[in-house]
Amino acid sequence: MNKDKVSNILHKLACGRITQAAAYETLKDLPFEDIEFAKIDHHRTIRTGIPEVIFGPGKTDNQIIKIIGSMKKSGSPIIISRVSKKSYNIIKRHFPAAKYNEQARMILLSAKKKTLKSPKYVAVLSAGTSDINVAEEAAATIEAFGGKAERIYDVGVAGIHRLFSFHKKISKASVVIVAAGMEGALPSVVAGMISAPIIAVPTSVGYGASFGGIAALLAMLNSCAPGITVVNIDNGFGAAMAALKMLRI
Amino acid sequence: MNKDKVSNILHKLACGRITQAAAYETLKDLPFEDIEFAKIDHHRTIRTGIPEVIFGPGKTDNQIIKIIGSMKKSGSPIIISRVSKKSYNIIKRHFPAAKYNEQARMILLSAKKKTLKSPKYVAVLSAGTSDINVAEEAAATIEAFGGKAERIYDVGVAGIHRLFSFHKKISKASVVIVAAGMEGALPSVVAGMISAPIIAVPTSVGYGASFGGIAALLAMLNSCAPGITVVNIDNGFGAAMAALKMLRI
Amino acid sequence: MNKDKVSNILHKLACGRITQAAAYETLKDLPFEDIEFAKIDHHRTIRTGIPEVIFGPGKTDNQIIKIIGSMKKSGSPIIISRVSKKSYNIIKRHFPAAKYNEQARMILLSAKKKTLKSPKYVAVLSAGTSDINVAEEAAATIEAFGGKAERIYDVGVAGIHRLFSFHKKISKASVVIVAAGMEGALPSVVAGMISAPIIAVPTSVGYGASFGGIAALLAMLNSCAPGITVVNIDNGFGAAMAALKMLRI
Amino acid sequence: MNKDKVSNILHKLACGRITQAAAYETLKDLPFEDIEFAKIDHHRTIRTGIPEVIFGPGKTDNQIIKIIGSMKKSGSPIIISRVSKKSYNIIKRHFPAAKYNEQARMILLSAKKKTLKSPKYVAVLSAGTSDINVAEEAAATIEAFGGKAERIYDVGVAGIHRLFSFHKKISKASVVIVAAGMEGALPSVVAGMISAPIIAVPTSVGYGASFGGIAALLAMLNSCAPGITVVNIDNGFGAAMAALKMLRI
Amino acid sequence: MNKDKVSNILHKLACGRITQAAAYETLKDLPFEDIEFAKIDHHRTIRTGIPEVIFGPGKTDNQIIKIIGSMKKSGSPIIISRVSKKSYNIIKRHFPAAKYNEQARMILLSAKKKTLKSPKYVAVLSAGTSDINVAEEAAATIEAFGGKAERIYDVGVAGIHRLFSFHKKISKASVVIVAAGMEGALPSVVAGMISAPIIAVPTSVGYGASFGGIAALLAMLNSCAPGITVVNIDNGFGAAMAALKMLRI
Amino acid sequence: MNKDKVSNILHKLACGRITQAAAYETLKDLPFEDIEFAKIDHHRTIRTGIPEVIFGPGKTDNQIIKIIGSMKKSGSPIIISRVSKKSYNIIKRHFPAAKYNEQARMILLSAKKKTLKSPKYVAVLSAGTSDINVAEEAAATIEAFGGKAERIYDVGVAGIHRLFSFHKKISKASVVIVAAGMEGALPSVVAGMISAPIIAVPTSVGYGASFGGIAALLAMLNSCAPGITVVNIDNGFGAAMAALKMLRI
Amino acid sequence: MNKDKVSNILHKLACGRITQAAAYETLKDLPFEDIEFAKIDHHRTIRTGIPEVIFGPGKTDNQIIKIIGSMKKSGSPIIISRVSKKSYNIIKRHFPAAKYNEQARMILLSAKKKTLKSPKYVAVLSAGTSDINVAEEAAATIEAFGGKAERIYDVGVAGIHRLFSFHKKISKASVVIVAAGMEGALPSVVAGMISAPIIAVPTSVGYGASFGGIAALLAMLNSCAPGITVVNIDNGFGAAMAALKMLRI
Amino acid sequence: MNKDKVSNILHKLACGRITQAAAYETLKDLPFEDIEFAKIDHHRTIRTGIPEVIFGPGKTDNQIIKIIGSMKKSGSPIIISRVSKKSYNIIKRHFPAAKYNEQARMILLSAKKKTLKSPKYVAVLSAGTSDINVAEEAAATIEAFGGKAERIYDVGVAGIHRLFSFHKKISKASVVIVAAGMEGALPSVVAGMISAPIIAVPTSVGYGASFGGIAALLAMLNSCAPGITVVNIDNGFGAAMAALKMLRI
Repeated sequence: MNKDKVSNILHKLACGRITQAAAYETLKDLPFEDIEFAKIDHHRTIRTGIPEVIFGPGKTDNQIIKIIGSMKKSGSPIIISRVSKKSYNIIKRHFPAAKYNEQARMILLSAKKKTLKSPKYVAVLSAGTSDINVAEEAAATIEAFGGKAERIYDVGVAGIHRLFSFHKKISKASVVIVAAGMEGALPSVVAGMISAPIIAVPTSVGYGASFGGIAALLAMLNSCAPGITVVNIDNGFGAAMAALKMLRI
Repeated sequence: MNKDKVSNILHKLACGRITQAAAYETLKDLPFEDIEFAKIDHHRTIRTGIPEVIFGPGKTDNQIIKIIGSMKKSGSPIIISRVSKKSYNIIKRHFPAAKYNEQARMILLSAKKKTLKSPKYVAVLSAGTSDINVAEEAAATIEAFGGKAERIYDVGVAGIHRLFSFHKKISKASVVIVAAGMEGALPSVVAGMISAPIIAVPTSVGYGASFGGIAALLAMLNSCAPGITVVNIDNGFGAAMAALKMLRI
Repeated sequence: MNKDKVSNILHKLACGRITQAAAYETLKDLPFEDIEFAKIDHHRTIRTGIPEVIFGPGKTDNQIIKIIGSMKKSGSPIIISRVSKKSYNIIKRHFPAAKYNEQARMILLSAKKKTLKSPKYVAVLSAGTSDINVAEEAAATIEAFGGKAERIYDVGVAGIHRLFSFHKKISKASVVIVAAGMEGALPSVVAGMISAPIIAVPTSVGYGASFGGIAALLAMLNSCAPGITVVNIDNGFGAAMAALKMLRI
Repeated sequence: MNKDKVSNILHKLACGRITQAAAYETLKDLPFEDIEFAKIDHHRTIRTGIPEVIFGPGKTDNQIIKIIGSMKKSGSPIIISRVSKKSYNIIKRHFPAAKYNEQARMILLSAKKKTLKSPKYVAVLSAGTSDINVAEEAAATIEAFGGKAERIYDVGVAGIHRLFSFHKKISKASVVIVAAGMEGALPSVVAGMISAPIIAVPTSVGYGASFGGIAALLAMLNSCAPGITVVNIDNGFGAAMAALKMLRI
Repeated sequence: MNKDKVSNILHKLACGRITQAAAYETLKDLPFEDIEFAKIDHHRTIRTGIPEVIFGPGKTDNQIIKIIGSMKKSGSPIIISRVSKKSYNIIKRHFPAAKYNEQARMILLSAKKKTLKSPKYVAVLSAGTSDINVAEEAAATIEAFGGKAERIYDVGVAGIHRLFSFHKKISKASVVIVAAGMEGALPSVVAGMISAPIIAVPTSVGYGASFGGIAALLAMLNSCAPGITVVNIDNGFGAAMAALKMLRI
Repeated sequence: MNKDKVSNILHKLACGRITQAAAYETLKDLPFEDIEFAKIDHHRTIRTGIPEVIFGPGKTDNQIIKIIGSMKKSGSPIIISRVSKKSYNIIKRHFPAAKYNEQARMILLSAKKKTLKSPKYVAVLSAGTSDINVAEEAAATIEAFGGKAERIYDVGVAGIHRLFSFHKKISKASVVIVAAGMEGALPSVVAGMISAPIIAVPTSVGYGASFGGIAALLAMLNSCAPGITVVNIDNGFGAAMAALKMLRI
Repeated sequence: MNKDKVSNILHKLACGRITQAAAYETLKDLPFEDIEFAKIDHHRTIRTGIPEVIFGPGKTDNQIIKIIGSMKKSGSPIIISRVSKKSYNIIKRHFPAAKYNEQARMILLSAKKKTLKSPKYVAVLSAGTSDINVAEEAAATIEAFGGKAERIYDVGVAGIHRLFSFHKKISKASVVIVAAGMEGALPSVVAGMISAPIIAVPTSVGYGASFGGIAALLAMLNSCAPGITVVNIDNGFGAAMAALKMLRI
Repeated sequence: MNKDKVSNILHKLACGRITQAAAYETLKDLPFEDIEFAKIDHHRTIRTGIPEVIFGPGKTDNQIIKIIGSMKKSGSPIIISRVSKKSYNIIKRHFPAAKYNEQARMILLSAKKKTLKSPKYVAVLSAGTSDINVAEEAAATIEAFGGKAERIYDVGVAGIHRLFSFHKKISKASVVIVAAGMEGALPSVVAGMISAPIIAVPTSVGYGASFGGIAALLAMLNSCAPGITVVNIDNGFGAAMAALKMLRI
């Protein structure tokens, strides 16, 4: 559905060619498709610039297959996040074109080719090797929607020269995503070095008093370096979404 | 201090005109000024695009006055955040040009005139009237650094038509800042409507199980609408800083 | 046991036809049946209008079977909540009439037919597809006790037009139950639209800083929209119980 | 503004008597009044059955006075909750008809006379004497909107016979509100005795591990007695709002 | 080792029959046996009146077997708490006299026969059937050390007449142990009825906002009924230990 | 009111000399006195062995004065806990016999003389000097109800020989109360030394990660030494109540 | 009291020159002085190498004066931590030699002159100017006990070149204390640069989600850089104590 | 890479023998090796005195094998912490010299022989037998880097004479590591006895309100005995690292 269609309906109403009730009925039914247990929001791209994405956890394989079926009609890229390889193998039987990114635990279907000629890119940093899964979820999502991501992994603050050696690549990025667990100090250090906005992603990497990522989350929210914003623990996907929106400002 | 100066020193070193030790000494001393209890980071604008800002709490009036004295030399706008009117009255005696924004509890000195011709602006929303202080801290900071802010206050979700009536102004903003306390639901609703990145600011407004803003903070971190990033509770200043960085992408 | 019987005993005592001690013995033994590890409260329907329900977790299959055996005598509908399909298969051998609702994880025996002619109904909303299990526990419980439930699933705030398209059905409900995880914002938005009481059910759907449903729980408790009351995380059953009591006001 | 007006506008649009844009402009401006820092939601009574109420904390006396001025036009009863006596004395100078309920810390203006002939009433219980403030906020709110409240105070579980002596009055209520701090056990005991829905209000009464009402809040959310719903800590106002909505089912 | 032996050593030292160093060496080695990974405290009965008990979790079967071997020499009853049936089957091969209490998950060896002629007993109550495991750990421990326990299970506050029917048995107990999960209200109600000291045991029974027993723990700590003391969540063993000490006052 | 009176009423009912309704009315009214905002539980001594005590916080001076007036008739000792000296001065005008214990912040009226000839006593320990207020609340309460308390203050574990020098006095006590803040380690060490039951009272003494007594509370609940039971933070009064009940076993 | 005295007593006992009981009495009385509300541990220097220090909060001025009086006899330096200037003015009247360190809020009496010839020193860093109070408590305590402290303040990670310019001074320290609030990232960065042990002191500087220092505390406990140990929030004193012990290894 | 090499490069630059850019490139590349997913910090020994250690969790066996391959070149001892025996068996195929410490769950490769002639040692204490795993991680790490560890296990405070019998060995240690779960009281008692610095390691041993080690962590942070510093829950490795650094002061 496109914007013209909506305008058209409103125009007809204003001209008296359809009744008020009819217009209301049409408008409220159009933007989504009701498949019993889910309401597919085909209209989301128009409103927010990014199509709906399927969050895997809590959905059965069958539900995911039905939602893909409904979404395929729109022609947008389809992403299913946080799915196991086992689920992928089942889903693939129905949609053989589906690709699986194992590190990011993500299924991609008809993802947009990177057609943006823009030199703008998002630098995606991880503090340790254990944070790579989350960083990769961010990088893969950016690429799935046609953005460009530069990966810089394992550059945590305990050996800060590793970080500095990538200074040039980081400082030229339009947006920087930093995934870090444990004490979550990396975003603060990066924010003091560059002028781009930083999206901090706390990860659940750690043990004991890391409390599944709370320590890193709090550190990032309390950063003394201004310009950092934060997303949920392990939410590489959300960081990518925000970065994509920033690239379009 | 400017970039040329740094290049110059390194050039002299490479040419053997100054010793290695001398170069090191010069470089490491330049970027900040040591006034006993504080190290003023004059170099920050070069690195991060935004000058150092004075965070008021925990500093005596005398300390603030000394820091202003040191920062004045750089010619950058000077902001002191979260200061009482009482402190302002003392500080004003030393710097009569200082202005006070009572709602934002902020002192401004030689703030940049809004010279940006850019039509880009940041929409700053508050959910309730009690959230305005925080929203105003964001809006005033944006303006202090030459940005443009559009204020839209008291448009919480309990009367959602109030929000919708500002749909046009919100959807044309380059960045949207949303300050909300209590259940913190407003950013999620806004995120479903527009394509700009949203910076959510939880406020400490509420009582009982709001736990001084934790309820709103958690709601914002867990938003089902992608593209939202979050700053610390009541941190209107930080949201403004991030927005300014985004405007420059 | 009925109210007449109790009156009768007290009458006999007042008339001196039975001793004080005998009356006490009779009264205190009647209202429940002691089956060693459990005291079946046959009297509950008289006091609270709703029969005792068997909460599955922490009970062995054998214990459940014994409790059903004791409860069957009363003729009330029997509900066993939160039982696995595996337990159901064992229990069914003893009570072949038992039905299993897989989504709600509930066993039903001799559930009351919906005999209420009342047009009153409870609208049961879920914010996402992952919240359906909890919503379904509520809807199935309402129906088991003779109430009427209208299911409206996957209408979360990220695509708020989906919610608005069901405005009519929601606003005509006598009570509205809203199950939502993550940021738990849906009840606040619904409460601003309608005049019926709303029972909010936080679900454990989410990850990271959702803390197993705490984020949604806090959001609902702090709602800026008055008229919302809240039950425990994932407690679809409790929401249904409260709704049934409200229908009878 | 009434429903007819809205219908009228839509009718004119459908007939082509006004343009689509004009209709939109009219509709979106009507339901609230923009007084700079607040958007008064005159339309709320139509949507939710209860007029907007002014939550005192975080508002200056001047802001409250302006909001009252705007709301007075609608003729609805006006409630300002959680205001100090000092604020009341200032506000009273502008609105001499304003009454102050000291225990409930509430200002009332042109509150509806109790015109309901209905014998239905809400029983409002407090566990201890220190919980009375919260209970009184509930009772006074119910009466301000024309409902009937029966107060039963200081009937906590440590001397359970005090509670039983009010059994008759409690069991005949249509809705029961129970305010309790400390261990918050009273709602569970009451719920086992009666068939009406119970709204539990945890209070911040207690010390040490009561954590400002969290202990009572958790107890109420985890009640083993079905049919209890819960509001925020100390939220007597919210309990009253929910009760009023239930009375109208 | 007995008290005489210690006196004897000190006497010899005072008389100059052994050197100061020798006395020290003897005294410090006697009270426990060092078996590499554990220091068996044979002396504990003398000091505290109750022998050391083996806490199962975190110990391998082999470690438990070695500790039993060391403790057997003392002739005291041996209790191993929180062991699986699987571990029991292995341990039994070495100590065929070992008995297993499945509900309490406890191994008993050469437990003292109940020789106390005292009519004193401990009433052990459980609020629900799911709390019985914890209650049984308490009751079995009391009996293992020669005390008398009266079990009264499934008498929670939602049907308070069940509790009252056991009033006589409860009020004649010397100590009352009350195990309750969920909202943990039972100890408060019992404490208002009787004069014996009450030991409250919160259990981890519940879900959602029960937080694994925290809700019940907080309720018990905040009880408005004086005379209640509390032990750790699920700590039926500790409650029994405290009760045994009280019986000996 | 005494037990005979109750028996008498029941006897009359059994004999037909009074009606059933009359008996019910008499019985339910007798045990407490309704003074509007409070229900004085004169019957509590009969049920629990200890008269009702007035918890000061949250009550106005006037309310306290009225409650004292009602309680005086019973002849029991009257305790008002946690009242300021300022309140005491007002209350004293009405009840000149009232005494004030400044350290315990407690008012005592007609407290029982220590008439118990029993050599049994409660040892009351404090870990530091800052914990003495709480310890004193316990000791003074014990004495007010005719018990005997031995105070042993400032014997924390950092200088454990101080504790050992009081070994004899502690080990001969019937019950031991231990008040400790900060890390709350003292009860564990004492429990390993003696055979009497120990009531641990966490205090809010400390700063930073002591979280107002939570650190001490958790330490006490998790003690590796069996036989310790715990009361709420700073609840010296509750510890005394439990100790008094234990002395009577 | 010195070690010789203790040996002497034991020797006399071994020789039969004093009785066993007399030796016990002497030994247990010697090590501390009982001044009613406090037990002064004169013996602590012998055991732990550092004399007892007076923790101010929770003690009245009079109690502090009495404790000083008792401690003065030992000749050790006397420190009273966390006292207000007001208390100091009162205490000074009794002990005119008392000095007050306003930033550290500490009173010093007869503090040891820095007689250590050792070139070893403790580097004391603060992340911001608001952390200086805590850092100063550490530095002043080290000096009071004869150690050497080098202060390096306001070198937080947002301008990391400030830190690097002090690299030489930091890397030559024997022990490094780092006081930091907000996100607490500084210790991690320092630990990656140097080989000395680092004592991290979280401060309560910050707001919102810093939760009074919890964010910094968690960050420090979870540091990815090994070799960091942590003390309580704002505990500059404890950090100094640990550093002094390390210097003596 | 050694310090000479770095000096050499800087010297060449100062002499004009290499360009400024070339020097920068060389310096920034040298200190670590980039193997795609990890940046091996070969330079860490020079900076911090201790080589990088491989933290096992979150890394695949393949990643660990590649990192070992890269680290082997440096000749430093290689430690992989927290790996399962299963992983060890796979890794061993590639590096047959690898040894596995089952209790500490640690792989060691070419660990330094204990060549230190120093009589200095670290005493490693555990409170219970269940804490031994953590204590052993500490002891094994110390030995892997050439230090000396004395193990003293199962000496918790419930039988404090066990601890005292090791007084001599503990008081002669240069550093003392104390691992304790549950109430975590052992470090406080030890700190009152000796003059060496104490590193407290809270363990996750316990249940219920121990909250996975939080109770012990808080107790240790709040110790009334000065000189204790704390590491993360179960972090035996970090305690060993800090102890090694202290030994070198």
